[in-house]
Amino acid sequence: MKIDGTPYRSIWVDETDSWSIRIIDQTKLPWALDLVRITDMDTMAHAIKAMLVRGAPLIGASAAYGVALAMRADASDANLANALAVLGETRPTAINLRWALARMQAALQPLRPNARAGAAYAEAAAICDEDVATNKSIGAHGLPLIAARGQNGRRVNILTHCNAGWIATVDWGTALAPIYMAHDSGLNVHVWVEETRPRNQGASLTAWELGKHGVPHTVITDNAGGHMMQRGDVDLVIVGTDRVTRAGDVANKIGTYLKALAARDNGVPFWVALPSTTIDWKISDGLTDIPIEERPASEVTTMTGRALDGSIATVRIVPTSSPAANPAFDVTPARLVSGLITERGLCDANEAALSEMFKDLSAKEASVAKELA
Amino acid sequence: MKIDGTPYRSIWVDETDSWSIRIIDQTKLPWALDLVRITDMDTMAHAIKAMLVRGAPLIGASAAYGVALAMRADASDANLANALAVLGETRPTAINLRWALARMQAALQPLRPNARAGAAYAEAAAICDEDVATNKSIGAHGLPLIAARGQNGRRVNILTHCNAGWIATVDWGTALAPIYMAHDSGLNVHVWVEETRPRNQGASLTAWELGKHGVPHTVITDNAGGHMMQRGDVDLVIVGTDRVTRAGDVANKIGTYLKALAARDNGVPFWVALPSTTIDWKISDGLTDIPIEERPASEVTTMTGRALDGSIATVRIVPTSSPAANPAFDVTPARLVSGLITERGLCDANEAALSEMFKDLSAKEASVAKELA
Repeated sequence: MKIDGTPYRSIWVDETDSWSIRIIDQTKLPWALDLVRITDMDTMAHAIKAMLVRGAPLIGASAAYGVALAMRADASDANLANALAVLGETRPTAINLRWALARMQAALQPLRPNARAGAAYAEAAAICDEDVATNKSIGAHGLPLIAARGQNGRRVNILTHCNAGWIATVDWGTALAPIYMAHDSGLNVHVWVEETRPRNQGASLTAWELGKHGVPHTVITDNAGGHMMQRGDVDLVIVGTDRVTRAGDVANKIGTYLKALAARDNGVPFWVALPSTTIDWKISDGLTDIPIEERPASEVTTMTGRALDGSIATVRIVPTSSPAANPAFDVTPARLVSGLITERGLCDANEAALSEMFKDLSAKEASVAKELA
Repeated sequence: MKIDGTPYRSIWVDETDSWSIRIIDQTKLPWALDLVRITDMDTMAHAIKAMLVRGAPLIGASAAYGVALAMRADASDANLANALAVLGETRPTAINLRWALARMQAALQPLRPNARAGAAYAEAAAICDEDVATNKSIGAHGLPLIAARGQNGRRVNILTHCNAGWIATVDWGTALAPIYMAHDSGLNVHVWVEETRPRNQGASLTAWELGKHGVPHTVITDNAGGHMMQRGDVDLVIVGTDRVTRAGDVANKIGTYLKALAARDNGVPFWVALPSTTIDWKISDGLTDIPIEERPASEVTTMTGRALDGSIATVRIVPTSSPAANPAFDVTPARLVSGLITERGLCDANEAALSEMFKDLSAKEASVAKELA
C-alpha cells in the first residue's frame, strides 16, 4: 500500500546493498516513519521481540529474513541451528513464526553451506510474495461485499477493530485488504476505526495506514461502535483474527465479541478475514479450547502518546492503588459470524463449510492426528 | 462515604465559618484531593461549568448552594434573578440543575430579602439531605440483589460502567449505593470497573472512590467486559443513567448498550439504578426521542494522566490527520434491562410497571400535558 503516494511493503530487501533488510519500526508509529536497516540475525530477533514488527504474517516473514541474514554471515549447520533457535524464541504464541522457520529449515538444511545464503533470500522472498498473494486474494473475495453496498457512489461505512492492515502483513492486510481494494477501485468507502484499548492499535496503526494511503476514516472509542450501528451508520463490520477453530469460533483482539453482538442486534453483517493458516483444525469450541493471553496491567493503567512539546510520553490514568486486569483476546462464537473471507473465497463459519472448502488442509490434520493416536 | 477512613459528602457547608461551601475538585482526581472553598456565586457557577463538580444530582445541589451564596451577599430581587440566570446557564442539559433552581426560586421569591439567606441555606441543605436519603433508599432496594448472590462469604462480582458513585451525587451514589451497602454490611463484594473511554470516569473516579472507601475492585478496559461475562466472572451488572423513558429505555454513558447485550447473551442480570427524577415521562422510544450529545473529538484524540515526574500531562494518541467522532451516550432498549433500582423499590423496565410504581409522577406529567394541549 502507499505512504503519502509511495508504494511500500512492511519488509523488503534494501535496494542499495541487496543484503540488508528494511522494516518500519511500528513502535514509533504514528509519530515517526523510521525505516530501520537490519544487517544481522540478532538485530532481527530483537526487532520481533520488541515488536518493531508485529502481526502474525509479518513476524513469519521477518523471521525468514532473519535466517537469511544468519546464512549470509555464516552458512554452517551450527549457525543455521542457532538462528532457528534464537528466532523461534522471540515470540511464544505466533503460529506463523514456527511455520516460517520450519519452511526455511526444510529448504536450507539439505543444501551445501555455500548454496544456503542465496537459497535463504529466495525462500524468504517467496514467503513474502505468497503472503501478498494470499492477502490480495482475501481482498478480491471480500471486495464484492463492499461493492454490493456501494452502488452509484453510495458511501459504504465499514467498522473495524484493532489492526489487521498491511503493516500486520507484508502487504494489503487481511481485514483491510477488501477495503483498500474497494477504495482503489473508486468505491466511496469510509472506515470507523475503533481505537482498540488498551494497546490502541486502531488509533495508532490502522488510522495511520488508512490515512497514509488516503482512505477516508474516523477514529471512535471502542464504546461507540454499538451506538454507530444502532443509528444506521455501519454497513458492515470486517475484522481479522488470531485463531479460528474448525467450527468457526473466532479469537480476536479483546472487544471483538461485543461488536459481533451489536452487529447481530442491528442486522449488520459481521465478517472475519483470514488466511487459511489461521484455522486451528485441532480445536472446535473456541470458548473452552483457546487460551486467552493475560497481558501486563501496565497496558491498562498507562497510556503513551505525543506530548505538546513533541516528545513521546507515558502517563498513568488509573489510581496507583487500583489493580487492573488485561485479557488480550476474546472469542466470538461462530453463531455471531456472518462469514469468513479467506484466500479461497467466502465461507460460512461452521465445520461443514470449512472442511468442505479446505478439504486438503483438514484431511492433512486428520491424518496427523491419526498418526499421533 | 469514606476517604481513607474519614466520612465525606461531595459538598458541604464549611465547618469554620458556616457560610462558605466546600467541594472536591473532581478535575484533579484521582491525583489530588483538593477541597475547594467557595465563597461567592460566580465561583460556584464556574465550578459547575468547568466540571469541578459533575453528576446530575451534585450539579443540582451545587447550584442550590450557589443561590444561597448569592443571597448571603445581596438578597435583593435583582440579585436573586441574576443568580438563577447565571447558574441556569452553567450546563445546558442537566435536568437536576433546572429542577434545583426552580425549587430555590419557589422557596425564596415570596420571602422578604432579609429572610432569604437563611432560608436559602436551609433549602439547599434540604435538597442535599433528600438526595442522600433517595440514594440510601436505592442502595437498600438494590442490596438484596447482591446479598442473594453472596451467601456464605461467596465473592460477588459486579461490573459497572462510568461513574454513578457518591461523588456524582451528594452521598452514596446511585449504581454504587447498593455496592457500598453490601460492602459495609460485610458481604464479599468485588467490582469490575470499566475505564469508560473517552473521559475515563471509571478509571479515574469510580476506581478512586471505591479504593478510598476500601471496596475491592479491578480496572478493566471497556473491551474486556464481555469476555469477563463469557468466562463467568460477572454475577451482575449495575449502572446509572442520565435519562429513562416511560417505556424503560435507558440512556447512559457510551458503551453501556454493549454491556447490556453481553449480559443478555451470558444470562447475567443487568440492573439500572436511578432516582425517579431521572424518568422522562414525556418520551417513550429512547432510540428516536433521546438526543445524543456529540462531544469534542479532543476527548478521543488525547489522554490526560500523571507523567513519571508527577506532573499532570496530556498526550495525543491519534494521528494528527485522522478525524475522530465522540458520541457521549447510547441507549439501551428496555428489552435488555433486567430491572430498575429506584428509591421506591425494584421496578420492571416497561411502561406498565413504571406508571404503576410512580402513579403520582406519571399522573402529574399527564395533567401537565393536558394543560399544554
